[in-house]
Amino acid sequence: MMKRNIYIDNMDVDLAKDTYFNKLNINPTFEYVKVENSIDRISFDMVEALMSSPNYNAAAMDGIAVVSAKTLNASEVNPVILEEKKDFYYINTGNVIKEPFDAVIMIEDCIELPDGKVQIIKSSYPWQHIRQIGEDIVKSEMIIPSNHKIRPIDIGALLSGGVESIKVFKKPKVGILPTGTEIVDDLKNLKMGNIIDSNSRVFQGEVLKLGGDPFRYSPIEDDYELLKTNILKMVRENDIMLINAGSSAGSKDYTVNIIKELGETIVHGIAMKPGKPTILGIIEGKPVIGLPGYPVSSYLVFEEFVKPLIHKFLGKKEKRENLIKATIAKRIVSSLKNRELIRVNLGEVGDKLIATPLSSGAGVTMSLVKADGIGIIPQNVEGAEAGEEIDVKLLKPLEEIKETVVSIGSHDLIMDILGDMTLLSSGHVGSMGGIMAMRRGECHIAPIHLLYEKTGEYNISYIKKYFKGKEMSLIKGVKRLQGFMIKKEDKELVKTFRDLLKEEISFVNRQRGAGTRVLLDYHLKLEGIDPQSINGYNRELNTHMAVASAVKDGKKTVGLGIYSAAKAMDLDFVEVTYEDYDFLVETSMLEDEKIKSFIRALSSKAFETRVLSLGGYKLIDAGEIIHIES
Amino acid sequence: MMKRNIYIDNMDVDLAKDTYFNKLNINPTFEYVKVENSIDRISFDMVEALMSSPNYNAAAMDGIAVVSAKTLNASEVNPVILEEKKDFYYINTGNVIKEPFDAVIMIEDCIELPDGKVQIIKSSYPWQHIRQIGEDIVKSEMIIPSNHKIRPIDIGALLSGGVESIKVFKKPKVGILPTGTEIVDDLKNLKMGNIIDSNSRVFQGEVLKLGGDPFRYSPIEDDYELLKTNILKMVRENDIMLINAGSSAGSKDYTVNIIKELGETIVHGIAMKPGKPTILGIIEGKPVIGLPGYPVSSYLVFEEFVKPLIHKFLGKKEKRENLIKATIAKRIVSSLKNRELIRVNLGEVGDKLIATPLSSGAGVTMSLVKADGIGIIPQNVEGAEAGEEIDVKLLKPLEEIKETVVSIGSHDLIMDILGDMTLLSSGHVGSMGGIMAMRRGECHIAPIHLLYEKTGEYNISYIKKYFKGKEMSLIKGVKRLQGFMIKKEDKELVKTFRDLLKEEISFVNRQRGAGTRVLLDYHLKLEGIDPQSINGYNRELNTHMAVASAVKDGKKTVGLGIYSAAKAMDLDFVEVTYEDYDFLVETSMLEDEKIKSFIRALSSKAFETRVLSLGGYKLIDAGEIIHIES
Repeated sequence: MMKRNIYIDNMDVDLAKDTYFNKLNINPTFEYVKVENSIDRISFDMVEALMSSPNYNAAAMDGIAVVSAKTLNASEVNPVILEEKKDFYYINTGNVIKEPFDAVIMIEDCIELPDGKVQIIKSSYPWQHIRQIGEDIVKSEMIIPSNHKIRPIDIGALLSGGVESIKVFKKPKVGILPTGTEIVDDLKNLKMGNIIDSNSRVFQGEVLKLGGDPFRYSPIEDDYELLKTNILKMVRENDIMLINAGSSAGSKDYTVNIIKELGETIVHGIAMKPGKPTILGIIEGKPVIGLPGYPVSSYLVFEEFVKPLIHKFLGKKEKRENLIKATIAKRIVSSLKNRELIRVNLGEVGDKLIATPLSSGAGVTMSLVKADGIGIIPQNVEGAEAGEEIDVKLLKPLEEIKETVVSIGSHDLIMDILGDMTLLSSGHVGSMGGIMAMRRGECHIAPIHLLYEKTGEYNISYIKKYFKGKEMSLIKGVKRLQGFMIKKEDKELVKTFRDLLKEEISFVNRQRGAGTRVLLDYHLKLEGIDPQSINGYNRELNTHMAVASAVKDGKKTVGLGIYSAAKAMDLDFVEVTYEDYDFLVETSMLEDEKIKSFIRALSSKAFETRVLSLGGYKLIDAGEIIHIES
Repeated sequence: MMKRNIYIDNMDVDLAKDTYFNKLNINPTFEYVKVENSIDRISFDMVEALMSSPNYNAAAMDGIAVVSAKTLNASEVNPVILEEKKDFYYINTGNVIKEPFDAVIMIEDCIELPDGKVQIIKSSYPWQHIRQIGEDIVKSEMIIPSNHKIRPIDIGALLSGGVESIKVFKKPKVGILPTGTEIVDDLKNLKMGNIIDSNSRVFQGEVLKLGGDPFRYSPIEDDYELLKTNILKMVRENDIMLINAGSSAGSKDYTVNIIKELGETIVHGIAMKPGKPTILGIIEGKPVIGLPGYPVSSYLVFEEFVKPLIHKFLGKKEKRENLIKATIAKRIVSSLKNRELIRVNLGEVGDKLIATPLSSGAGVTMSLVKADGIGIIPQNVEGAEAGEEIDVKLLKPLEEIKETVVSIGSHDLIMDILGDMTLLSSGHVGSMGGIMAMRRGECHIAPIHLLYEKTGEYNISYIKKYFKGKEMSLIKGVKRLQGFMIKKEDKELVKTFRDLLKEEISFVNRQRGAGTRVLLDYHLKLEGIDPQSINGYNRELNTHMAVASAVKDGKKTVGLGIYSAAKAMDLDFVEVTYEDYDFLVETSMLEDEKIKSFIRALSSKAFETRVLSLGGYKLIDAGEIIHIES
């Protein structure tokens, strides 16, 4: 039996932050940088002009400099003749106006005579067309306030104001240490059971973008003494130290004990999900944070604790997060004990902003990549019902979200191609899931491929059944080939549905409501096969590629799926049937700009070329509209 | 007589852009970068996963790996005993699940027996607590689309998907050449008539922030052959070449002729103000742009032409600018010939977003630093009347603008200090200007110091007169010392107002409506002095510091102003009087959060300390409120 850590705390997130930051008591420091290198740095003090700009009286026009008094009575009937050197001199914009000259006459208003003299027919007034000393910047005037992020235009003004270098907040040095014997630094060395270190690279990018100075160390294996020695050394080299992971309660999770030995842990375990196994520690007065290993958890813990910490070093006042309200598309269950953070896709459907939760595993990095926002279910609230409004922190500009077509339904590889060609957010819940999402008004389009058992026809019967009295249309998509996916060496094992009953075979199924599952059940019923007698019938995966991947790595494993997935995984393929993969849409939405642009992409030559190169598709009527009578 | 260029064009801005970009026909190129260094780069193609993640079946919990079939009937009454190595093995999260094991039981659900065996009282189902191959990322799935700006989280997903390096748009190399004999590279070498090169540093920062690769050359003097040789060399070293300035029609403006000689000019002169003298040229197939010399003009021309050009190199689709509507506070006169761009301050006053134009000189860099947005008066429109709505391009986040106190009125150095302590936008138009702005509903507060001739009392009489029937209040500010400013060597010249009549003296006045001008006129009237007999009475400057600066650099020059301005310029000062510098506000606004925060700053110890260190101020009742009966 092994020794494991036990979490002491389930501390409220805000309380944990306050407790920790109070204990840390960070005093930001400054440094001087040359103005030309100060872009994106934060001013430590207010910066005043050291010199006026212009710092001399300067011509504001091309022309001649004159003494205004000498031109006082000039008019068309009483022109004044001026002599060069004596009465005027030629100047260009920016040239010095020397005393006693006190006005500039534009070259357009000068009649240049053959003898070099100039004739004037309009009087000039004192300081006419002259940029007086300090017109732009007056010495000692404030150019930028303190705590101001320097923009390019500020650099221009600072230089014009005679400022060569300025005091800025010193960037905190942030050390990032990946730990774990299974962690590999280089994809080339990746073996079974290894994990490529990706979190530390995410932190590196985040620290950089926040204005900190990241330093990533090479991974260190799970060796208590080795870790201890190195962590102490690294703490001394940095202002903030991040350790990832070892913050959990596994037998090799040393981080908490090392921090305790070298310093103190202020918090271990926060009431946030994902993110619970977080350590907020202090060694030699410096913040040392242990972040959980799962990518999503570590990202959210970084956002919650490391980001405001870096802000403190940079003198940035913490402001309320800019949250927006969105209607949650499906029921979210959350424990009273935790603040729950849910990755969501957002889309403007009708006049509502709809938040659709993405798959919730803390390991699913792609859910963060695809997320438009993070939905927040507060602590002491037991989830949210579908249709309720929740707070969402945006990850993408709202404007972009509003231009995005929200698709929920069946999965197909062509959705990636369409997602590359248009703004498309694509949720994969199977065809029936898409129909239900459309009924609840959560999506603009629903990709479906549903075989109607009685007629053998695709999609239309289902729409008539589920959308009685509504004006619906079908945007025709592709014909795609479904069949058995199997490894090349196992290819003799499966030719028909009946072969799935063989004892040595492991089947990998799709989830309930998936069109491919409907297809399977249809054929099993036709042939009178009991589904439960198929080994693996209950193992459900959500996408064709996931099934293909399981087939590839399993022993005598078979799945039903599309040709392109089998091809991508270099599997053998036994044809079953071509089916119609189409897009359900409300007829009224066909006039919407985003849907029009989606249809344009679907009908384009570029799309056809890319889809046909996948293999297993036919394009006959892509982009055509069928209005459904219901 | 000198040879000058003549503008050929006054071309519509959009037409100029289209013509130029069509002629250029830019084909972006790509390069490969390591994923860990790809932050903020733009993907050239869609990127697919090269490997699944996890790429093996992995434990999702700490616990034991079992064969699910062996636990099928486990229950409290019928516990199942499992033997290590034979029936189970211990695992931590992330460990490999080896066949035939197909489920994980959490350590919390295991009863560990003294003999090393484990007792189970709940059955497990196949794939329970196992992250199946491809659960996060499936090989060949799209991770990011093309034309996507890489975020830290994308880097994590790309690495997890086995991607080591990706194809990104190559950054365009942008050469930046400052030209002009008067241009100096280093503040230390600045002499009278020289200008410090600041535009090129602004361009450098802008190019960097847009994702380009800037290279700034040292300034080159106005020497035709030298410029020509160097420009050709530089064009060959870069993808885009910016030349600043020499684009105008002055006698030393060589840029257009050099571009014509080395290549061709597509446009010279655009219908935009500021920004008219712009050259859009091509040399050896590459874009060469001549930008005007004034900082504001060059910035706006950069925004209009260089920014979209860099976007083209980076594959970024040009979108409609995100414009908002704002009510213009005062009449703008604009020529039908040009698109007019006006720097504005924005503030939410009542339920309107009010745009107040900042001083309009193209040389006034500070107007850009202070601007919240750029107002646009389209070509073929003859200006805008006060109260009309215009389009504004935001330079700051709207949220920040809404939290900003808009102050319009008299100028004082304490406004810089308050601007450093709170979000404050401060326009200087004199006390009467402030009163008028308040009447038009353009500002939240108006700093005023208006002497009422009949009573010798400050401010209150004016408020009663101009705000009949309105609930107004006065936030008490500071008592400040006014007096004559004069150079130390001239200190014997002026002791009284009557001394201003001396012939050798040049006076520098403040603009009409300024409280200091009212003070002057009050004293002149008291002593029966004719203002027009004072030499320089009509020379008007807008701030105390501008007057102090003019005194500093003039010959026997005198101004009336505040002590702190004289001190900042190291001038002698002859005391005249202490006056009340207060803030006018609508009574209803006293409950507003931003105004409360302004009053807090005004009453703070920190403010008092900073103001007293300037000298010439007394703080007696700063932050107190006087309700005005009217």
